Amino acid sequence: MKACKYFGNHDVRLVDTEVPRPESGELLVKVLATGICGTDLHISTHGDWIGKPARPGVTMGHEFVGDVVEIGPDVQFLQKYPQVSSEISVGSRICAEPHLPCGSCWWCIRGQGNICSGIGHLGVTRDGSFAEYITVSADRCSLVPEEITNHEAAGIEPLACAVRAVHRSRMEIGDTVLVIGAGPMGQDVAKVAALSGASLVIISEPHPYRRKLAADYGFSHVLDPQETDVVGQVMELTRGIGADVAFEVAGLSETVNQAISAVRQGGRLVQVGVPTGAVTVDLRRLVIGEIELIGEHATHWDFGTAIDLIRTGRVDVTSVITHTLPLEQVLEGMELAKSSMEAVKVVLEA
Amino acid sequence: MKACKYFGNHDVRLVDTEVPRPESGELLVKVLATGICGTDLHISTHGDWIGKPARPGVTMGHEFVGDVVEIGPDVQFLQKYPQVSSEISVGSRICAEPHLPCGSCWWCIRGQGNICSGIGHLGVTRDGSFAEYITVSADRCSLVPEEITNHEAAGIEPLACAVRAVHRSRMEIGDTVLVIGAGPMGQDVAKVAALSGASLVIISEPHPYRRKLAADYGFSHVLDPQETDVVGQVMELTRGIGADVAFEVAGLSETVNQAISAVRQGGRLVQVGVPTGAVTVDLRRLVIGEIELIGEHATHWDFGTAIDLIRTGRVDVTSVITHTLPLEQVLEGMELAKSSMEAVKVVLEA
Amino acid sequence: MKACKYFGNHDVRLVDTEVPRPESGELLVKVLATGICGTDLHISTHGDWIGKPARPGVTMGHEFVGDVVEIGPDVQFLQKYPQVSSEISVGSRICAEPHLPCGSCWWCIRGQGNICSGIGHLGVTRDGSFAEYITVSADRCSLVPEEITNHEAAGIEPLACAVRAVHRSRMEIGDTVLVIGAGPMGQDVAKVAALSGASLVIISEPHPYRRKLAADYGFSHVLDPQETDVVGQVMELTRGIGADVAFEVAGLSETVNQAISAVRQGGRLVQVGVPTGAVTVDLRRLVIGEIELIGEHATHWDFGTAIDLIRTGRVDVTSVITHTLPLEQVLEGMELAKSSMEAVKVVLEA
Amino acid sequence: MKACKYFGNHDVRLVDTEVPRPESGELLVKVLATGICGTDLHISTHGDWIGKPARPGVTMGHEFVGDVVEIGPDVQFLQKYPQVSSEISVGSRICAEPHLPCGSCWWCIRGQGNICSGIGHLGVTRDGSFAEYITVSADRCSLVPEEITNHEAAGIEPLACAVRAVHRSRMEIGDTVLVIGAGPMGQDVAKVAALSGASLVIISEPHPYRRKLAADYGFSHVLDPQETDVVGQVMELTRGIGADVAFEVAGLSETVNQAISAVRQGGRLVQVGVPTGAVTVDLRRLVIGEIELIGEHATHWDFGTAIDLIRTGRVDVTSVITHTLPLEQVLEGMELAKSSMEAVKVVLEA
Repeated sequence: MKACKYFGNHDVRLVDTEVPRPESGELLVKVLATGICGTDLHISTHGDWIGKPARPGVTMGHEFVGDVVEIGPDVQFLQKYPQVSSEISVGSRICAEPHLPCGSCWWCIRGQGNICSGIGHLGVTRDGSFAEYITVSADRCSLVPEEITNHEAAGIEPLACAVRAVHRSRMEIGDTVLVIGAGPMGQDVAKVAALSGASLVIISEPHPYRRKLAADYGFSHVLDPQETDVVGQVMELTRGIGADVAFEVAGLSETVNQAISAVRQGGRLVQVGVPTGAVTVDLRRLVIGEIELIGEHATHWDFGTAIDLIRTGRVDVTSVITHTLPLEQVLEGMELAKSSMEAVKVVLEA
Repeated sequence: MKACKYFGNHDVRLVDTEVPRPESGELLVKVLATGICGTDLHISTHGDWIGKPARPGVTMGHEFVGDVVEIGPDVQFLQKYPQVSSEISVGSRICAEPHLPCGSCWWCIRGQGNICSGIGHLGVTRDGSFAEYITVSADRCSLVPEEITNHEAAGIEPLACAVRAVHRSRMEIGDTVLVIGAGPMGQDVAKVAALSGASLVIISEPHPYRRKLAADYGFSHVLDPQETDVVGQVMELTRGIGADVAFEVAGLSETVNQAISAVRQGGRLVQVGVPTGAVTVDLRRLVIGEIELIGEHATHWDFGTAIDLIRTGRVDVTSVITHTLPLEQVLEGMELAKSSMEAVKVVLEA
Repeated sequence: MKACKYFGNHDVRLVDTEVPRPESGELLVKVLATGICGTDLHISTHGDWIGKPARPGVTMGHEFVGDVVEIGPDVQFLQKYPQVSSEISVGSRICAEPHLPCGSCWWCIRGQGNICSGIGHLGVTRDGSFAEYITVSADRCSLVPEEITNHEAAGIEPLACAVRAVHRSRMEIGDTVLVIGAGPMGQDVAKVAALSGASLVIISEPHPYRRKLAADYGFSHVLDPQETDVVGQVMELTRGIGADVAFEVAGLSETVNQAISAVRQGGRLVQVGVPTGAVTVDLRRLVIGEIELIGEHATHWDFGTAIDLIRTGRVDVTSVITHTLPLEQVLEGMELAKSSMEAVKVVLEA
Repeated sequence: MKACKYFGNHDVRLVDTEVPRPESGELLVKVLATGICGTDLHISTHGDWIGKPARPGVTMGHEFVGDVVEIGPDVQFLQKYPQVSSEISVGSRICAEPHLPCGSCWWCIRGQGNICSGIGHLGVTRDGSFAEYITVSADRCSLVPEEITNHEAAGIEPLACAVRAVHRSRMEIGDTVLVIGAGPMGQDVAKVAALSGASLVIISEPHPYRRKLAADYGFSHVLDPQETDVVGQVMELTRGIGADVAFEVAGLSETVNQAISAVRQGGRLVQVGVPTGAVTVDLRRLVIGEIELIGEHATHWDFGTAIDLIRTGRVDVTSVITHTLPLEQVLEGMELAKSSMEAVKVVLEA
């Protein structure tokens, strides 16, 4: 089969390889659609994901939907979510949580596999979804309901990450929200915040095309930080109080500081963007304003909510899909996503 | 002016009385619309509100909107909410939080005036809104934006109570929710839960007309507890897990027990309905399921959110208004609300 | 070996039985000391534990310490707690968490095995510790440090339950606390609350000997509810505010109502006592005071803390041990615990 | 009277000035003892406190105890704390919360005066306690119980700050705790954490004398970061898990990063130290480990707890008092505190 693999040192190639065999507890899945994520771009350039080196030879990719073609031995399907049936069989369409907890550490036994100390990731430490087939542990999988298209289903995983970010913010109905960065993740976070009852969602994004996408989706306050004083605007829109919650989805010193300045005293700042190195931040307002800077990682029992949001039409994850390509053009897709701010989300289809 | 007063011993009459004068810190407000609440009905029948005796001679009513006609001495308008302007002047339309904290107890100095140990209430301990004019402390008032009609504005206070109930539930996007009782408060709670991102809102209500109103509003799971096993249905709809959150809005032993049975282990049950006396409940499932039974009272900085939900059209509070009458027919209005389950919310207009 | 078994219908006998064999993942443990708990007494009288029928033929008992004598196949010792080494081998002394989660339900996969929907219990659904030997899943076990005597170690499990109760209360340093009931569990809860920084711990207990034990331990406010108005005393001691947190450890209508009356508005009431049937409670103060009535069950990652509290001498769990008997006298021990309020905790030793 | 005033530009002098008169709601207090805080040193050097300029001419100092000598008009003593009587009269000894909320902003009306947007401070914006007399708003004051000496009472305010820091950490019994920095505040935080039930308190401090004071107080794990790998030690002491909670009380890039590295995934880091400018931090572990970096400021209804901890002998705040001087030597005292790491807490007595 075709698979796009990382071989170390910027060497990423589409190669022919064996179709994998499902081991104990695993499913073999034919990939129908798979999205290109910032993680993939980072690995192809830097060879790691947040300091965790990608395994040379690994098949990349982790946002995907596919058909179950074979069920390995000793598979059990758990009822993970109230929103989603667990009746999976050969022919079922599934998506999967790409982080792979060890199962036995302090965090895993407490159900916190997303911050497992020995966590692995599809497409980083284990073969991922930029391929015709993938094997994946059955307990990571969820059934994709019929109402959801393949195109949409490729967006379940990033949406679940956004749900996690909003959970971490402890947002409540009526809160005012700032989202800094309107890439695919920022837009998903904004959508989830709006559906959690935000009174006001303010988005800040320097790139006009991404601002346009957000405005087209229906967001009424999409600011250009190059033209507007974002903190000043937040203060004006909140009558001098500041945002209850800010999501930083850019990962830059400047925007972290901006978020600290724009959130009200006692508010929360969820750090979604992963800086590429140390950032320089003024923590003084955080300290005396009793602000909380909150980390968030991946998904944590959030697939049920994400699937339900898409299935019921409350979130349209396709609004950021700007390009759809066949798997054979995965390298072009990655190049596109790296080089153009107008390539927001690139999806590969079988 | 005309005012509907409670004189003790079931003696409620529409009488002529003096227009009140605003004292220090107060506004004089011409009432434009005012809703009849269960509290008013309870007082007219029982003479108290949750054990607090109504003051004989008190003007009843507390859900209202009106025009500011005079501003008393030493008035200061605080910026209470990011969503609502504090620019109030003569001619402004305002609504008011009807609970009247003492301002100096342990709770008040901690900003928890809704559970103040010496709390008063408009329409119970102090003259309320079933009158042509009312005086009210300026710091209890919020400006009603132009987009909101008088009819809608009468529903701000109950909606704010529903916002409080949902806050207390610690609900998050994706939660599954059960609401027991579809009177005006139950329907408001269901609306707020849906807008807070509930994956599923299940409503249980024995009266067909109230079920119809809920279904007409768009709720897809409205159960008749006389025909359906509510707990069984909740379990089926949540794939055997139970509701994350239940709101009991009936105040009966049977429905409290039902709620305890329908919520999942680790879930929360917000007790919105105030029982008229002791209830008989089986707490065993609550104990071993680590369920929380959570009290909630009135509003707690929730008017900004309620106003914003109405102003933006996200909540239509008029869906439960079944009757609109002139103030002169307040007694008929109360009789109607007591006698007919089809009189869901009765609003009096000037 | 000798084992004390429940055979149904009040039939509890000490019988000879086979020493069990450790299965996959299990340890065979020689019991050194084991405490008699209210659960055991309830089963011998009623045949169930909170509605879950005891399995006829089951060996009773679940609070124990013992020596590992054999390690079954496929055993892995997890690092469950920062406070306790996981280096267990043949000859190690261990204690065990007696609740047995299913491992695959909604709660278990979220690390909430103590509220597992299919939970089992040592001594109820699976052979327990009133025997010379017991087999137990290795992942339920913790090493008992050398500093802890066998006598003390029998008290680890109940102390861990008390830690869970205090966790559930969300108590903080400076809180004022009421504990209703000074049996073994009530006294453990009071000890843990004090060590969590309570400004004031008030204990209410009708039985003079139990009050004496609490006073001897160092508690300065131990009330006799037959002589004292408990609610009035709490109000006086908290200057009219009420307790921040109450723990109800009696399970009676009267004391649940007392706890609701004694806790301040906005406070928390943890229901530790399991009523034997429905209780009659006045929820009105709970509703309008926004009080939370919080269930709590067993232990939830609390053994590390309990072991550490005993090891460092911060808690003396032996203060409530009034009788120590050999295993052969288990029936006498249970009779004693049932019949005499002066038999507070009875421990059986090998 | 004598008063130590800041006149701008490093100009701090002991001068003769008028005894102030109590205005409406105020008390006139004869200062008995007053501690020198880092705030005072910072103002004398930099002229501001966390960016808020000190008012030229202001009397410095804010940690104090004194005798009420006159009660101004319209004074009301609120029952602020269950632990402390509010019966204050002329001759009573009182301490005071030095932050001065505006009373009308979004935060103040919600009882969050410590993060008031227009907050003032004794000794910064309003005349403080480095004087023979001070006037202070009665609602800021608490009665000092007889059991507490003047020497101890000067330590109430910093201890209350430490209580606030621990509250913010959401610490629970059994948590493992790291405190970076063993100045007066770090030691107070360590004491409060221990009394909140920490299983383990690890202190890191480069200065031998401060380490000695901490060890003399009874802390068993006091590390020298110049000799020890602090993060490595924390990991070893917590069996590879990391600290549940860290308190950074140094305010340096290096130690903030150290704290982020030493806290476990999912843990909390309370930033107590206020950096003098921007810090350079690697947030990547915070993000993927879902760590929370939590601001904390001053005191927030914490005086009752602090007074109670001292009154009952649970905390000895005098352990860090290395020097006691008469008010006349305030300048020498400040010089000492600036120049010598062995001058930990300097107290001025009348």
